[in-house]
Amino acid sequence: MNSNIGQSKAILLHEKYCGKIGIHSKIRMDGNLPYVYTPGIADVAQKINENPEYAFKSTIKKNSVAIVSDCSRVLGLGPIKPAAGLAVMEGKAVLFKKIADIDAFPICLDTTDEDEIVRTVCNIAPAFGGINLEDIASVGGKSFNVEDKCKKLIKTKENPIPICHDDQHGTAVVVLAAMKNALRIANKDIRSAKFVFIGCGSAGYACYDLFKKAKMNPNNADVFHKIMDKNNHAELVTNIYKNRDDFDLLNCKEKIVAEDSARKEKMTLLEAMNDADAVIGLSESKKDGNVISEEMIQVMNPETPIVFALANPYPEISYQKAKKAGAEIVATALSGTPNQVNDIISMPAIFRGALDVGATEISTNMLLAATEALRSSVPQVNDVNHIISLPGRVEAVAEMAYQVAIVAKRDNLIRNHEWDKDRYKDEVTKRIEPFW
Amino acid sequence: MNSNIGQSKAILLHEKYCGKIGIHSKIRMDGNLPYVYTPGIADVAQKINENPEYAFKSTIKKNSVAIVSDCSRVLGLGPIKPAAGLAVMEGKAVLFKKIADIDAFPICLDTTDEDEIVRTVCNIAPAFGGINLEDIASVGGKSFNVEDKCKKLIKTKENPIPICHDDQHGTAVVVLAAMKNALRIANKDIRSAKFVFIGCGSAGYACYDLFKKAKMNPNNADVFHKIMDKNNHAELVTNIYKNRDDFDLLNCKEKIVAEDSARKEKMTLLEAMNDADAVIGLSESKKDGNVISEEMIQVMNPETPIVFALANPYPEISYQKAKKAGAEIVATALSGTPNQVNDIISMPAIFRGALDVGATEISTNMLLAATEALRSSVPQVNDVNHIISLPGRVEAVAEMAYQVAIVAKRDNLIRNHEWDKDRYKDEVTKRIEPFW
Repeated sequence: MNSNIGQSKAILLHEKYCGKIGIHSKIRMDGNLPYVYTPGIADVAQKINENPEYAFKSTIKKNSVAIVSDCSRVLGLGPIKPAAGLAVMEGKAVLFKKIADIDAFPICLDTTDEDEIVRTVCNIAPAFGGINLEDIASVGGKSFNVEDKCKKLIKTKENPIPICHDDQHGTAVVVLAAMKNALRIANKDIRSAKFVFIGCGSAGYACYDLFKKAKMNPNNADVFHKIMDKNNHAELVTNIYKNRDDFDLLNCKEKIVAEDSARKEKMTLLEAMNDADAVIGLSESKKDGNVISEEMIQVMNPETPIVFALANPYPEISYQKAKKAGAEIVATALSGTPNQVNDIISMPAIFRGALDVGATEISTNMLLAATEALRSSVPQVNDVNHIISLPGRVEAVAEMAYQVAIVAKRDNLIRNHEWDKDRYKDEVTKRIEPFW
Repeated sequence: MNSNIGQSKAILLHEKYCGKIGIHSKIRMDGNLPYVYTPGIADVAQKINENPEYAFKSTIKKNSVAIVSDCSRVLGLGPIKPAAGLAVMEGKAVLFKKIADIDAFPICLDTTDEDEIVRTVCNIAPAFGGINLEDIASVGGKSFNVEDKCKKLIKTKENPIPICHDDQHGTAVVVLAAMKNALRIANKDIRSAKFVFIGCGSAGYACYDLFKKAKMNPNNADVFHKIMDKNNHAELVTNIYKNRDDFDLLNCKEKIVAEDSARKEKMTLLEAMNDADAVIGLSESKKDGNVISEEMIQVMNPETPIVFALANPYPEISYQKAKKAGAEIVATALSGTPNQVNDIISMPAIFRGALDVGATEISTNMLLAATEALRSSVPQVNDVNHIISLPGRVEAVAEMAYQVAIVAKRDNLIRNHEWDKDRYKDEVTKRIEPFW
């Protein structure tokens, strides 16, 4: 795309609209000024001041999510300036609106400092019903630390709200849902299947972690990530093994080593792929996308090999090449070929459910409920070309929101106790406009 | 109003709409997903990354303003919780949209610490074309310091944006515009007229300061503000005089003392009002609103006495009482009586002009231009009941935006060099919908 910079359709579209989102007033002004603003507004402010939960019934907080990014790792572009990231975060805000009718606003930060991000997120939280963290680099563990610290800090507040790192959990939910359908077609069990993960950044580690929570045996999983030399030059993809001690070993990788009793030795990707049932690529693949070779696919377990090449915008291997090499079920993050596995399929729906019950957090159980809802809502069952719903499919969004809300209520993580399970599914379905 | 809490029209309205603003997508989604989001969006992000000014042509930054408050002094309510302030800031966002077609978003902060506010404002600045500071307490000089520090910090950035404290400058512009028309009716000159200011918070000091910039002689002006005893109990309104040294003496008050060579002695409000041409109340008046007595008005210069009782929601003296006591020109901040002097008349229009030229700041010259535009755009000239335009009057908003833009361009404070003076007035008039 970048070769045509200055004349791409995306650029023309952005110059035409100049801002993909707009803000409108929901209230007509004739005669309402004294109630929308001073003096009448004092009544509302005072009522919220006495009971801050009332903000969830009387302000935009009920339906708003901040899309917050420090723009330290945006798409395949790496670190870019916050004004540049704004185009992307505004795009995400459009998708939150279109897919789940959420009033999302992009907040691109003029800082990449971990603690500064955390403080800023918590400082602006009062205006929002949720915070969606986006495109924060995992180098040094930052993306994990930011989410953890934000969650801990927000819990100490009077009215906690959900804070969720999209690249971790949004991705993990979609990958696990798609994988469950793929395994069903392959007639395999997640508890015994052998997995290879390529990439251990935000998405890669979160997937590994959610797969474990869905009963994957860590002894059956190898996780690969990059080794850079001291000058940040060479890149070698190597597995995480017990004695690996390169300088980029993050906390999450230490957890993998601690929990993995079998995979102790250094090995190559080709060795790990030997007899694997599924490979999940969530790496920083480059344009030539040759992280996964045809040879690697050919050494996999020949019974219905599953290849998820999810690097974006350049998959670890192209859909066509993977198929040609013998992979029976193939997914990428891109549209244009079957099985698009992309975080926009899950996160707006998860926040829809969370906002509707006034959730105080997004828990692992809520993520697993969303996964199962998404998995079960594919229109075609047992079809290798339809292991996941298209982005914005109303039935899938409604089902995810519904199951997330039910689990939040069950686990007592809600503040909207008037939420009515029986009416909700119908309400949320009607609320969401068809995306396509 | 507060006696009817729970059933006021404002509360019913807020519960009905639950959020006075909403966010919409300006782009239809069918077929556009690859351009709104990945992969096409990478072209736009990259183009901005190479030239951050391009964000003003391709993202919401062109037309967005953050309404930022720490909610430390909201309306007459004093300090309230940020979730409570949200109802008010969302109301202000509605007015920015309705009055000037600006996409404003409320950001209520979960901190009241001066430096933390400054850092947060600058951290979130990349998503916005301007920052409107609101309802920050002036105690300890905070509201002044926050604005000054934010402005200094933003100037060091690659693409500075206007940061303006509404309660100071929005108010000062409207008060000065109304006063100029009042003085014209009274056939008096601002250079020789005698003024009494009551209140030296954000609005009070900013008014005094802008009046000076409009050639008011500080030797003809007395400024009163509260003295609290050591226990914060008793309140006495006393003038700022050379030897006054109470513990709440802020920087701005020291400036007044330094510049005022004549008013050296302590005096009462009644003494100061003797022979005054105009009084401007911008205090924290309480419900009984008896800061200005009828006796005080009766000792003013009998030639067309001017009384601005602008405390909100409780004027220092009611419109009716002031008239009865002999004031010929009376203004309050409230609707319902003639001459509503309120900052919503000016600030949205000033930001409209600033955004349209891509202003890097809002300068004093731009404020003075807005003042003159507002003053000259009253529909009835020389009418004691029409010294100021109603909020949202299209002609006044367009004229203010136009003059602000012209001065910004003249002073080389713009980045949109394609801005066309000849076409603009017509364009901005068409853009703004009639408010009432």
